[in-house]
Amino acid sequence: MTSKVALFEKRIGEALEEVLNGEQPRTLFDPARYILSLGGKRLRPLLTLMAVDLFGEEPEIALNPALAIEIFHNFSLLHDDLMDKSDMRRGNPTVHKKWNANSAILSGDAMVIESYRYIAKVPAEHLPAVLHIFTTTAMEICKGQQYDMDFEQRLDVSEAEYLEMIRLKTAVLIGGALKIGAVLANASSQDADALYQYGIHIGLAFQLKDDLLDVYGDPKTFGKKIGGDILANKKTYLLIKALKNANATQRKEIEQLLSATSFDPETKIKFVKNVYDDLNLKTISENLIEKYYLASLDCLSSINVSDDRKRDLVELSENLMYREK
Amino acid sequence: MTSKVALFEKRIGEALEEVLNGEQPRTLFDPARYILSLGGKRLRPLLTLMAVDLFGEEPEIALNPALAIEIFHNFSLLHDDLMDKSDMRRGNPTVHKKWNANSAILSGDAMVIESYRYIAKVPAEHLPAVLHIFTTTAMEICKGQQYDMDFEQRLDVSEAEYLEMIRLKTAVLIGGALKIGAVLANASSQDADALYQYGIHIGLAFQLKDDLLDVYGDPKTFGKKIGGDILANKKTYLLIKALKNANATQRKEIEQLLSATSFDPETKIKFVKNVYDDLNLKTISENLIEKYYLASLDCLSSINVSDDRKRDLVELSENLMYREK
Repeated sequence: MTSKVALFEKRIGEALEEVLNGEQPRTLFDPARYILSLGGKRLRPLLTLMAVDLFGEEPEIALNPALAIEIFHNFSLLHDDLMDKSDMRRGNPTVHKKWNANSAILSGDAMVIESYRYIAKVPAEHLPAVLHIFTTTAMEICKGQQYDMDFEQRLDVSEAEYLEMIRLKTAVLIGGALKIGAVLANASSQDADALYQYGIHIGLAFQLKDDLLDVYGDPKTFGKKIGGDILANKKTYLLIKALKNANATQRKEIEQLLSATSFDPETKIKFVKNVYDDLNLKTISENLIEKYYLASLDCLSSINVSDDRKRDLVELSENLMYREK
Repeated sequence: MTSKVALFEKRIGEALEEVLNGEQPRTLFDPARYILSLGGKRLRPLLTLMAVDLFGEEPEIALNPALAIEIFHNFSLLHDDLMDKSDMRRGNPTVHKKWNANSAILSGDAMVIESYRYIAKVPAEHLPAVLHIFTTTAMEICKGQQYDMDFEQRLDVSEAEYLEMIRLKTAVLIGGALKIGAVLANASSQDADALYQYGIHIGLAFQLKDDLLDVYGDPKTFGKKIGGDILANKKTYLLIKALKNANATQRKEIEQLLSATSFDPETKIKFVKNVYDDLNLKTISENLIEKYYLASLDCLSSINVSDDRKRDLVELSENLMYREK
C-alpha cells in the first residue's frame, strides 16, 4: 500500500470514531458504535476516497458520503447477523448476542438513518446524484439479502441467479462507493460508469474469493474456521456448481448431507470438499475470479486519466485477488 | 371534512396503491405492500398536502414526500410491532405473524430505503431542506421508540420523560409532515416553524388522547379492546401519573399488579381504572390535552395567512381532539 492510501485509511478510521459519539440514549447508540468499532477492511469508504483521488481531486470532499457507506455497510452486517443467527462477527459477539434482538433491530434502523444524515452533508449541487446512487444501491443490497435468504430454501439455484444475488448483496456497494467518489470529483458520466463497472467486477471476484477461501483457505492465515459455509449449508458458488456438475450419486449424497440434522462437522466438511475436488471446482472458481478480475482491469483502462493515477486502485485489486484472508 | 380535504385523501390513497407495485422479489415487498394496504388515518401525508394548501400552493407538489412520510410511518409500525411482539394491527395479523421475524426485519429495512427514494424525488432546490427535516425526524422517532422500550424496565419514569418520549415517538412526525409541506410551498421559515410547533402540540394531544381512549373509550366505537395498555403494563400518561399521585397503599397495589405473572384480565383492568378514577386522572389528562390543543391553535394563529385558509386544519384538529376512536 502506498503511503497515500495509508493516509486515507487513517483519516477514515479517525472520522469513524466520531460517528454517533456522545449521542443519547446509549441503549440505542452503543450497539451501533460497537459494530463500527470492530474494524474490518474499511474497503468501501477507502474506495470512495480513492475514486476522488483518481480524478485528481481532494479526497476529503468525499469523506461524509464515504462514512455514510461504511455506516450503511455495518448496518447491513448487523441486521444480516440477526437474520442469519450468527453469534460471532470479527471474533466478537454479534450485537443481538451481546444485547438482544430488539437492540439489533432498532440500532440497525438508527444506523440506516445516520448513514443518510452523512449523505445529507454532500454539497447541494451533487446531492441529487449522490442520494440517487446511495438509495438505489441500498435497495439493491436489501434485495440481495432477500435472495440469499430465499436461496436457503432451494436446491435448484442456478449459477446465474447466484451471481445476480452476490452482485446485489456485495458488488453494488463497491461499485456505488466508487461512483459516488467519481461524482464528487466531477468525473464525466462515462468515467463514473466505467468506475462503477470496475467495482461491480471487483465485487463479484471478491465474493467468489470469499467463498473459495472458506473451503481452500489456509487455516493459519484465514482467521475464521475453514468450512463454515459448508456446515451452514450456505449456497455458495462452489455448492451451486457442485449440485449442478455432480453425478447422480454425488448429488444424492450432497443432498442427504444438506438435510441431515445430526452429523460430524469434520466429516461433512471433508466429504463436501472431496466432491469439490473431484469436480475440479477450485480451478473452475479461480478461472471465474480471474475472468472478473481481468474485466475489472478493462473497465479501469477505459477511464480517461493517466495510468499513473490508476496505480493505487490496480494494487488494491491485486491485493484483494491474491489475499489469503 | 371539506370536499377539498376528501380529495387530498383520495389522491393519497391512489398514490399509495402504486408504491412498490410489481417490485421483485415478492418475498421482500409483499409484507411492505401488506402493511401499507391495512389503511389507517393517512393523517401524516394528509397534513403535508394540507400544509401546502395552507400557503396557497398546489398540494400535488408535495405528494412524493407525503408518500415518503407514510411509508416511513408504516415501517416504524412494522418494526415496532415486531419489537413489541404485537400480534394484531388494525384488525389484521402483523407482518411477523403473517410471515416471520426475518421478513419483518428486512421488509421494514426496504421500506425505510423506499421512503428515501420518494424524498429523493423532491425538486433539487428544496431537497437539502426536506432531506434534513426528514432525516432528523426519522432519527428522533428511533430515539422515541428506544425510550419507550427502556421505560418498560422502569417504574420511576417522570411525566417530563414521558412527554419527551411521545414528542419523539409521535409528535415530531406530525410536525415534520407539516413542515415539509411548508418548505415545498415556499413558506417563510418563521411560518414553517410555527406550523411545525402546531404539529408538535397536536401530536402530543393526539397521543394523550390515545392513552385516554384506551381506558375511557366507548367499547362500541373505540375499535380496539378497552384496557389493552393496562394489560400490557404500558407506561402511559395515566399509569405514570397514577404511580406518582397514588398513596403508599395504591402504589404498592399497582406495583404488585405490574409484576404479577398470573391475573384475571378484567379484574386487573377494573382495579387500575378504579385507581385512575380515585386520582381524578381522566380530568387531569383531559386538561393537559386541552392545554396542548389550545397551544396548537396559538401556533396556527401566528401564521401569516388568512383565517379562511386555516379552516381545514382547525377542523381536522377538532376532529382529532374530540374523536372517540
